[in-house]
Amino acid sequence: MANQKLKIGIVGGTGYTGVELLRLLAMHSNAELTAITSRGEAGLPVADMFPSLRGFVDLAFADPATADLSSCDVVFFATPHGVAMSQAQALLKANVKIIDLAADFRLQDAAVFEKWYKLPHSCPDVLNMAVYGIPELNREQIKTAKVIGNPGCYPTTVILGLAPLLEAGLIDFSAPIIADAKSGVSGAGRKAEVANLFAESSDNMKAYGVSGHRHHPEILAQLTHLAGANIDFIFIPHLIPMIRGMLSTIYVKLTDVGQATDLQALYEKRYLNEQFVDVLAAGNMPETRSVRGSNQLRIALQKQADTGYLTVVAVQDNLVKGAAGQAIQNMNIMFGLDEYSGLQVLPLLP
Amino acid sequence: MANQKLKIGIVGGTGYTGVELLRLLAMHSNAELTAITSRGEAGLPVADMFPSLRGFVDLAFADPATADLSSCDVVFFATPHGVAMSQAQALLKANVKIIDLAADFRLQDAAVFEKWYKLPHSCPDVLNMAVYGIPELNREQIKTAKVIGNPGCYPTTVILGLAPLLEAGLIDFSAPIIADAKSGVSGAGRKAEVANLFAESSDNMKAYGVSGHRHHPEILAQLTHLAGANIDFIFIPHLIPMIRGMLSTIYVKLTDVGQATDLQALYEKRYLNEQFVDVLAAGNMPETRSVRGSNQLRIALQKQADTGYLTVVAVQDNLVKGAAGQAIQNMNIMFGLDEYSGLQVLPLLP
Amino acid sequence: MANQKLKIGIVGGTGYTGVELLRLLAMHSNAELTAITSRGEAGLPVADMFPSLRGFVDLAFADPATADLSSCDVVFFATPHGVAMSQAQALLKANVKIIDLAADFRLQDAAVFEKWYKLPHSCPDVLNMAVYGIPELNREQIKTAKVIGNPGCYPTTVILGLAPLLEAGLIDFSAPIIADAKSGVSGAGRKAEVANLFAESSDNMKAYGVSGHRHHPEILAQLTHLAGANIDFIFIPHLIPMIRGMLSTIYVKLTDVGQATDLQALYEKRYLNEQFVDVLAAGNMPETRSVRGSNQLRIALQKQADTGYLTVVAVQDNLVKGAAGQAIQNMNIMFGLDEYSGLQVLPLLP
Amino acid sequence: MANQKLKIGIVGGTGYTGVELLRLLAMHSNAELTAITSRGEAGLPVADMFPSLRGFVDLAFADPATADLSSCDVVFFATPHGVAMSQAQALLKANVKIIDLAADFRLQDAAVFEKWYKLPHSCPDVLNMAVYGIPELNREQIKTAKVIGNPGCYPTTVILGLAPLLEAGLIDFSAPIIADAKSGVSGAGRKAEVANLFAESSDNMKAYGVSGHRHHPEILAQLTHLAGANIDFIFIPHLIPMIRGMLSTIYVKLTDVGQATDLQALYEKRYLNEQFVDVLAAGNMPETRSVRGSNQLRIALQKQADTGYLTVVAVQDNLVKGAAGQAIQNMNIMFGLDEYSGLQVLPLLP
Repeated sequence: MANQKLKIGIVGGTGYTGVELLRLLAMHSNAELTAITSRGEAGLPVADMFPSLRGFVDLAFADPATADLSSCDVVFFATPHGVAMSQAQALLKANVKIIDLAADFRLQDAAVFEKWYKLPHSCPDVLNMAVYGIPELNREQIKTAKVIGNPGCYPTTVILGLAPLLEAGLIDFSAPIIADAKSGVSGAGRKAEVANLFAESSDNMKAYGVSGHRHHPEILAQLTHLAGANIDFIFIPHLIPMIRGMLSTIYVKLTDVGQATDLQALYEKRYLNEQFVDVLAAGNMPETRSVRGSNQLRIALQKQADTGYLTVVAVQDNLVKGAAGQAIQNMNIMFGLDEYSGLQVLPLLP
Repeated sequence: MANQKLKIGIVGGTGYTGVELLRLLAMHSNAELTAITSRGEAGLPVADMFPSLRGFVDLAFADPATADLSSCDVVFFATPHGVAMSQAQALLKANVKIIDLAADFRLQDAAVFEKWYKLPHSCPDVLNMAVYGIPELNREQIKTAKVIGNPGCYPTTVILGLAPLLEAGLIDFSAPIIADAKSGVSGAGRKAEVANLFAESSDNMKAYGVSGHRHHPEILAQLTHLAGANIDFIFIPHLIPMIRGMLSTIYVKLTDVGQATDLQALYEKRYLNEQFVDVLAAGNMPETRSVRGSNQLRIALQKQADTGYLTVVAVQDNLVKGAAGQAIQNMNIMFGLDEYSGLQVLPLLP
Repeated sequence: MANQKLKIGIVGGTGYTGVELLRLLAMHSNAELTAITSRGEAGLPVADMFPSLRGFVDLAFADPATADLSSCDVVFFATPHGVAMSQAQALLKANVKIIDLAADFRLQDAAVFEKWYKLPHSCPDVLNMAVYGIPELNREQIKTAKVIGNPGCYPTTVILGLAPLLEAGLIDFSAPIIADAKSGVSGAGRKAEVANLFAESSDNMKAYGVSGHRHHPEILAQLTHLAGANIDFIFIPHLIPMIRGMLSTIYVKLTDVGQATDLQALYEKRYLNEQFVDVLAAGNMPETRSVRGSNQLRIALQKQADTGYLTVVAVQDNLVKGAAGQAIQNMNIMFGLDEYSGLQVLPLLP
Repeated sequence: MANQKLKIGIVGGTGYTGVELLRLLAMHSNAELTAITSRGEAGLPVADMFPSLRGFVDLAFADPATADLSSCDVVFFATPHGVAMSQAQALLKANVKIIDLAADFRLQDAAVFEKWYKLPHSCPDVLNMAVYGIPELNREQIKTAKVIGNPGCYPTTVILGLAPLLEAGLIDFSAPIIADAKSGVSGAGRKAEVANLFAESSDNMKAYGVSGHRHHPEILAQLTHLAGANIDFIFIPHLIPMIRGMLSTIYVKLTDVGQATDLQALYEKRYLNEQFVDVLAAGNMPETRSVRGSNQLRIALQKQADTGYLTVVAVQDNLVKGAAGQAIQNMNIMFGLDEYSGLQVLPLLP
């Protein structure tokens, strides 16, 4: 497999997850980008829009109507919600695998999808066969998956931050799980909106989506699945004046057994063989810059002794482990490549 | 009183709370700065260190050993912890009032002070007469106080964020109160430390002090006092790449009565006559920049319907309502001035 | 005049110069805001768009079609280019004075205006009577002006940075004057454009407008006027990742007399009585933050000994001395108020 | 050579050029880091200081007194000025090549070095054999060099920005060459200094070193060498609130032949085979983020038609092409490796 060159298509390459896919795939020795589409920018060389790619990416954006995606091995959708499901069946018929970075295949329950995304789900049968693409939990299913719902950025931090506790049954669900999450502004996408202007969002922060954020049902579904029980979940995201980076601070009530357990050891053991999940030594806290530009997710734990609570802090680059990097990790697994191929890029610090 | 000119001294004016006192006092029509001391910078014109003050502040830093503070009406301490208590008794004898922006007079329990600040408290009798300077709660005592322990920045947001609930007895203490707080980097002070360099803290964030922060006991003492009961309290501060600004996201479990109460109306009524506390209309969330440079603190509420929890979000400028502005507000009250005098400065936006 | 309350209208208050006018006028004891218009936001309370104004500004945006501006004493135009000239004659007939913060009345030569702004000038007669509103040069004409063309942000720094040299005839025009200028992102306005998103312009800088910027002819016209001679002028602006602030580094060749002159003394004398222009002591360089939020402009000089050149560095807040502050300074002069009224706000540092 | 593993030592690895060397060398397939020293941090695992390196760098800092550098193939000095020259002769005797990222071997004239660095030069004979490590100009000498003086960050932009003009003799030296340069704060190093705190340097900019900066003589020496003539050179650096990135705007007077020449074609031809120097198409201007984290330097040209001047804009990442990346490029050349080995990392955008 070492010399295999996957033929790769990207639908919708003008946003931040698109350009991040391009950056990472250009350094991937088993990837050959064959098509990248954009309705609005057809004909424009990709490197004219993103000069950082000059010398590395020679393609121009193709018209979605005429681009030949059916000869690809895999197509990434870096599009608004609803696009992937409209093209999924045709691609699957052509034996093309799909990795959707939007939400079309994240929520197994189509009714929940429709409630939160205000769209009818056009292909529930494809949804049924889709795998939620978080390799540290679903690696076996990903190996044989034809369609991946690539997780949202916030969900990745919360789910991986809590998986060891949930798998071991150490959370007391009589209290809600609370995730206070913070994201850099790139998470809002490359859209021309006043609220995300530099002069608006620099030297400033705020909570948003407090009355309901689309990642709430996504996280809740996964936590419920891991817990095997109904849980209460509170999720408050915040916008932070940094380009990349996400930090989730998670508060859970431990069971009596949980309080007596060596949780540091539990986490270290759970993630021992996961190259992209790093449990910090006790007493350390992660900074978002320690993962900038890389596919690492770092976790730290702090018991709140008097209260029976545990605080979990998880950081990642929202565009890498939270989006494009995890998508490539999924691709690697789907095609039997080394899972780390193309993702051995070190964080940029300072 | 309108033409009264208070003689004001500042001990330790080279940090951020010092320069912020200078900025605000220079616009205060009843204030006359008569002395500002600095051990290290004696002789240096203040405006040479802070060119923003050129044309507004003519004084030079004075040697603490020779500065005549005893003829002041009031002395602000913008110093490291431990300095104010070493000079308090002499100033009080000279009939000078004291407002300490450090922690010497914040914690009524000297043992708690000593545990967290690693210093013996040198004047417990002065501590006994000190008033915790949060005007919206303690206005009457402040009017006659001779010594003010000016609140910490984080405590101001959490205490004012929860006071209406605690006064009305609407929090269910079977679950801990959780405050997930975020601060701009100026909160770390004007000290030469690698961790606070631009190249370290820009485009980056982190939790810190998770195993114990000095504002935990300060907040806990005030909340306990307001609750009239023992409570559990979890406090996790985070460092955010902005100069000024603080946002605390507070999670509390409501009692059954609390869940049935119109909390928006409760908060609006509680702070109706407080010019510096602003309760946003339901559905809005505050941004830190909406208070940048001003003494405003803004609060918003969001019920987490399914869980019985309430989320309170409070923002302030950590150097103004969180430090120098509140100190001047206390001064105004102590001397019978209009409480808003010198503090009518609008937030700087953008 | 001390108790005079000018009735003030603002046309187009939803941009950054608009909100800055509001901030400063709210602190101006002789100003009464009577109308503020916005085509798109009519009916919306101003403080709903700019929460920083909550408690200070009670007005709602008015429909331009119905707003009564004719009863104002003065109307500020914080609009795109071309709006002020379309309304100028009607307002002048109603005896309302006009201060245009756009370019309609900056360029005396209508042909130059039309070349750079791609608009025919609709009222050249009003243009003829307009005064270029830079008080330190044109104070006498401003006193009696009915229409002010408020200077562009870059021009203010370059013109005031060079005026003493030009007035004294100390520049050798055999070499071009070069202004390498740097601006914070707020200078690009409050428009939804991808290029000005936080994720695009943070941690980044660039030159722009290098093949021709509209402030080039404006500066050139004023320098030529001051020089009384034709000059060559090179102007390269740059976009800097800060909200506010502008710094212009100006390179000029000195005449032999200029090289022999005590230029520091020349500048200090020239601006001795100008409260808003501050010449730093020799050897100091200004930072933009030293003027953040204030109407100050600070200047420093450095001779380049071996070359016969002088470097002038000038900083200002682009939204204050570079826009709204200077507009209010002009208003004060036009109405015989204290020139400093409402502008005694100190810079915000840090 | 493809499987050669160079043994590499780094002296002084706790600064930003040190950690950048580590980041890049960890991705270099022909590099094996064998020792990294730090006087102050001996014994500390490198990844404890720089968590971004967790999982990639296993070494601990070694005591300089005991570290075995003499078995290395090459030693990088990422130290303060003066350290490399104190150890150079011993290493050379042990047949170890040296790449100094400080200034010890940049200035061929020891007297100039001593004037600007206030240090006597302790090994002028080593200085005589040192090569100025700018591969695009000195590739042949670098191939056989034993000691490299790695260029300063500013000099790299100015020298490569002007080399095609100087080589072709198209600059009119009757006017000074002016370089107005802008650098991110990481250029100031990882030193605890108040001026470089986030709260001091964020949302702020300034000129510095205007009365004389150490890179002035370094640039002047190289420009003079390329020009074969005496020239006047003015250099004003500025500090910009971004972590990485450097942009130099260079103003030169063209000869008559220069004005008539197709300079765009000249530059494109000159750098056609240089993978790390990218000449943008006419009409485009480079952003610093287009090179963030990469070894690219991008150049754009703009004729100032009426004046006979040309403006050259050059951007680079000050820590990569301006320091560690160029050092590795030099190493690759010295050891006959592919010049691009380990440097094929794409810029991080956004």
